[in-house]
Amino acid sequence: METVDSTRAFVKNVKRVIVKVGTAVVTRADGRLALGRLGALCEQIQELNSQGYEVVLVTSGAVGVGRQRLRYRKLLNSSFLDLQKPQTELDGKACAAVGQNGLMALYDTLFSQDSSGIFWDNDSLAALLALELKADLLVLLSDVDGLYSGPPRDPDSKLIHTYIKEKHDRGITFGDKSRVGRGGMTAKVKAAVYAAYAGIPVVITSGYAVDNIIKVLQGERIGTLFHRDADTWASIGEFGAREMAVAARECSRRLQALSSQERSKILQDIADALEANEKAILAENEADVVAAQQAGYEKSLIARLALKPGKIADLANSVRALANMDEPLGRILKRTEVADGFILEKSSSPLGVLLIIFESRPDALVQIASLALRSGNGLLLKGGKEAKRSNAILHKVITSAIPAMVGERLIGLVTSREEIPELLKHDDAIDLVIPRGSNKLVSQIKASTKIPVLGHADGICHVYVDKSADMDMAKRIVVDAKTDYPAACNAMETLLVHKDLAQNGGLNDLIVELQTKGVSLYGGPKASSLLKIPEARIFHQEYSSLACTVEVVEDVYAAMDHIHQHGSAHSESIITEDQEVAEVFLRQVDSAAVFHNASTRFSDGFRFGLGAEVGISTGRIHARGPVGVEGLLTTKWLARGNGQIVDGDKAIVYTHKDLTQQA
Amino acid sequence: METVDSTRAFVKNVKRVIVKVGTAVVTRADGRLALGRLGALCEQIQELNSQGYEVVLVTSGAVGVGRQRLRYRKLLNSSFLDLQKPQTELDGKACAAVGQNGLMALYDTLFSQDSSGIFWDNDSLAALLALELKADLLVLLSDVDGLYSGPPRDPDSKLIHTYIKEKHDRGITFGDKSRVGRGGMTAKVKAAVYAAYAGIPVVITSGYAVDNIIKVLQGERIGTLFHRDADTWASIGEFGAREMAVAARECSRRLQALSSQERSKILQDIADALEANEKAILAENEADVVAAQQAGYEKSLIARLALKPGKIADLANSVRALANMDEPLGRILKRTEVADGFILEKSSSPLGVLLIIFESRPDALVQIASLALRSGNGLLLKGGKEAKRSNAILHKVITSAIPAMVGERLIGLVTSREEIPELLKHDDAIDLVIPRGSNKLVSQIKASTKIPVLGHADGICHVYVDKSADMDMAKRIVVDAKTDYPAACNAMETLLVHKDLAQNGGLNDLIVELQTKGVSLYGGPKASSLLKIPEARIFHQEYSSLACTVEVVEDVYAAMDHIHQHGSAHSESIITEDQEVAEVFLRQVDSAAVFHNASTRFSDGFRFGLGAEVGISTGRIHARGPVGVEGLLTTKWLARGNGQIVDGDKAIVYTHKDLTQQA
Repeated sequence: METVDSTRAFVKNVKRVIVKVGTAVVTRADGRLALGRLGALCEQIQELNSQGYEVVLVTSGAVGVGRQRLRYRKLLNSSFLDLQKPQTELDGKACAAVGQNGLMALYDTLFSQDSSGIFWDNDSLAALLALELKADLLVLLSDVDGLYSGPPRDPDSKLIHTYIKEKHDRGITFGDKSRVGRGGMTAKVKAAVYAAYAGIPVVITSGYAVDNIIKVLQGERIGTLFHRDADTWASIGEFGAREMAVAARECSRRLQALSSQERSKILQDIADALEANEKAILAENEADVVAAQQAGYEKSLIARLALKPGKIADLANSVRALANMDEPLGRILKRTEVADGFILEKSSSPLGVLLIIFESRPDALVQIASLALRSGNGLLLKGGKEAKRSNAILHKVITSAIPAMVGERLIGLVTSREEIPELLKHDDAIDLVIPRGSNKLVSQIKASTKIPVLGHADGICHVYVDKSADMDMAKRIVVDAKTDYPAACNAMETLLVHKDLAQNGGLNDLIVELQTKGVSLYGGPKASSLLKIPEARIFHQEYSSLACTVEVVEDVYAAMDHIHQHGSAHSESIITEDQEVAEVFLRQVDSAAVFHNASTRFSDGFRFGLGAEVGISTGRIHARGPVGVEGLLTTKWLARGNGQIVDGDKAIVYTHKDLTQQA
Repeated sequence: METVDSTRAFVKNVKRVIVKVGTAVVTRADGRLALGRLGALCEQIQELNSQGYEVVLVTSGAVGVGRQRLRYRKLLNSSFLDLQKPQTELDGKACAAVGQNGLMALYDTLFSQDSSGIFWDNDSLAALLALELKADLLVLLSDVDGLYSGPPRDPDSKLIHTYIKEKHDRGITFGDKSRVGRGGMTAKVKAAVYAAYAGIPVVITSGYAVDNIIKVLQGERIGTLFHRDADTWASIGEFGAREMAVAARECSRRLQALSSQERSKILQDIADALEANEKAILAENEADVVAAQQAGYEKSLIARLALKPGKIADLANSVRALANMDEPLGRILKRTEVADGFILEKSSSPLGVLLIIFESRPDALVQIASLALRSGNGLLLKGGKEAKRSNAILHKVITSAIPAMVGERLIGLVTSREEIPELLKHDDAIDLVIPRGSNKLVSQIKASTKIPVLGHADGICHVYVDKSADMDMAKRIVVDAKTDYPAACNAMETLLVHKDLAQNGGLNDLIVELQTKGVSLYGGPKASSLLKIPEARIFHQEYSSLACTVEVVEDVYAAMDHIHQHGSAHSESIITEDQEVAEVFLRQVDSAAVFHNASTRFSDGFRFGLGAEVGISTGRIHARGPVGVEGLLTTKWLARGNGQIVDGDKAIVYTHKDLTQQA
């Protein structure tokens, strides 16, 4: 995931940095010097000097707690003019010493004079110095990762990445003062606000990490940033992220309270609004297309981006179809008489708040938004940046049709990529993430969040041609499965062929057919020696192009073993006229979709008749295979009694009668 | 999660440690000294010396790459006899310097003499030294976290926590040689094996972390351990963990291939085996109970541990009930005619491999194992250590009844707590974790794995008494919800009362009723001032005891807002005679289970009529609320065609006819 954030873009222009490091950072709990952290600090300053930064270090004496006083004599005795040559100062006297005969030399050089009886609030001093020296950035190194929304040890506290005065200048517990040192977080925030509003950005971050100063200067989103312009950024980042999710949930609860007719009406209104705004939508889409062409994007991307003539009418009609579909919410999936007069129902219910990340096609936005509305969910959408104008107008047209009593924040449009890592942190506010895009996108998202992710990481699909296959059918299906759309996740990547077909010419016919269509073939150990084709490096290989692996297997059981060992449990097909073998394959292959005498390319929500497709899942939890509106639902138990209590199960006679058929 | 591991228990007796640190650790990629890591190394040695350890440091010259040669003159010139007083050596000359005038002093003292033309494989030297000095432990600091099962950068490579010669002395790619230095991992492993088999345990770990030596000496499971006895530990840790999961999946696939009758027969055989082995089971259970009494465990734990008379017969009967239940696998949930002659079915299918962690009750093992068998899943079980004898014999009796063609490794019994963190890493081999125990257990598991977890973290259940409630019923339900089993997750924690009841005496009656039963009450702002009871600190509070929060609310909408804001979406109840208000509450409260005129204590798998309960989920994905066998199932799509291909959707006429009702 991208970590450089637009709020940190100013670091590109930073030359002169003031780094303030407190006693808590440079001493250990036992009062001894924290040599590791000191070393890392010197190493970073060396590195930054070598990159051309001017670094001024402000620190406490830092030799033991309690008995040692903070020492600033050096800084106090120097005129500010002297200090305006910080690089010389540090390079010439201090840093040169580092790596020759000692880390401490740097500190000795800076702080060797004793100053008795003078106590400084050194956070304020650092801020004053930063102004005086016209520094470009002030870094305050603390013993915590930055400013938190509550006590840093409270698991509910969140790190504030950007301080917004209006939001954070109340209600935030700044925590206790540091273990040692005078300031604590309150003093740091005060100093940071002072410097920031005087024009010098400030980052409070942890001095315990070995490379945080460098990371700050690389623009990484660590610590808490104080910046004069931050008040104007309030819609982005962590504020936007969490608040968008919370608002979407609140709106979704109001949506769920509506009747089925009322929810259906919203979709009808959206369909009408799409048609009424066709001209404006197409104009914005055209602007996206032109920009993409100018930017030199690939033709295939531009083709996916462009809304073709008639597309708006198609989209409106698909929204109307969703409006007219059977109500998905409140369906009774199970009804039980628990006891006399006590009826329990399990009914379908919305999941809550969805985050859907999709790539270039702007029509996906319409599809997804109407699915979310139909299923009563709140939604956060993030589209590709190539389609930003199209997405913005489609989002506006759709949310304008949402009645005020629900609220247009039901569907939030996330506009900057930087918000995604932030959103992915809020597993308490978002219930499901659906990445619709490349395998890489899905894997990245899965690796970076605790929120459940619905998606497939790999699509290594197999076709097994049995000895009893109708060979004409086999050729047709094998060619379709590989060539209809080679980049799709449901395309065939491995062809398994019964050994008898290697004897009777069947294998050869299949190979010739594929080669005629331009497919490059790689063989397993048996096939490569039989067919004189290059050997496949591994069997777990997704080519996503006109290439595939071929191997000869003993029988259907060997084919299944191969699939279980090397596949990705997405979609597999058997071609055979033997019904018994077909049933073994259908029952025993442990994949999301298993076909008999049909192409794996049918593994798709539209082709399966699910209407709009949410995605294809190779996970086993919640939803598996092509997922329609059902993937956006969960269940809820409703029980209606007339005063039943448990009382150690003595007070009730359980009947547990299944009434589902009568539901 | 516990990190101290029985394989690391030997560290308790370690006094003398040899630490070998390579060039790659003490220099940066640019050739400069890695001051941060050097500082951390010195800091650790100081710390260990102060704790009474004797530490000998072996290192390369480490000043730059390429131009500097490794320097061992000091070590080479000293006789081994001298070196047998390492503490004096280090304390007197080197470490005393640290913190006074420089980190480098330590290095200078050790390595200031030049040695020209001598190149050492210093990993071997460190091993020789360790033997010669009769050290208790050798720590080899590397630039990676330890020995991996493959190239360290390959995401499929796993860190090997304990080197087992028999398993790892082949097939492991030790990776390239280090960026600098002579050894690389192959040399380290060779030296480590040599020292370990000569009786000195060795840990290879990263020198990049600032406290790894200390962690190793505290027995933390970091790096790779080489130990003479490790071959006898082969059943535990990472070997056991992953292999158990893989074996369980293989067995489960064979189980799924059986007919429904055959699977049912296994359960019947298990029931018979339980009864036939009753005497032996009870004897082992008695031994657990006696041991628990001797260990001074709480009475409530011992009560849960003991199998009461008749319990084995009850268990056998519940297994027979599962054997006779409707087949849960292969149920057709949806059937669609995709096109003429092309029928698609969505059918129920096992999840795969489950890891279930349960606390003291040994009967849970029988329940869970039979549920897994009935639903075709593989299973790994971890019970409480108090019940270890009971669990061992129950596991043996059950697995002995599994036919050889399925394999008894279908159900694995995890016997040591240390295996859990290891198992939780294998999100590719385990499909679902179900922790059955305290909230703390559930939260810990959730925080430490990527595998989906089914469970509830909090149970903050509300009862709302509306103005139109039947007050006798309200009193009965409120008392039951709070007092029937206060520690249960479905017990009431907050009582919300309509404001009119504060006027007409209804609120007072409820309060008196609860106080009579010994319930301590804490009020929200309104209730505490009205009732003169202590104020509740926060509303999101799970007492799990005879205590609860009370608050007065405006109406049902305010009650729902309160529940949504402060609850945990577990179970809530409304007491009212107003059907309209009841329906608003039932429909709009966004919790797993919502009751009207009944106690929240009914929120339970047995009481809901689900048979054996897998757990209660407050998650929304996959399963919500009390979960029975359905929570152990996923779905699978089966499609039977007669040669259909996609060919750009031109080759097929979709009919998408719903045939579900005819299924």
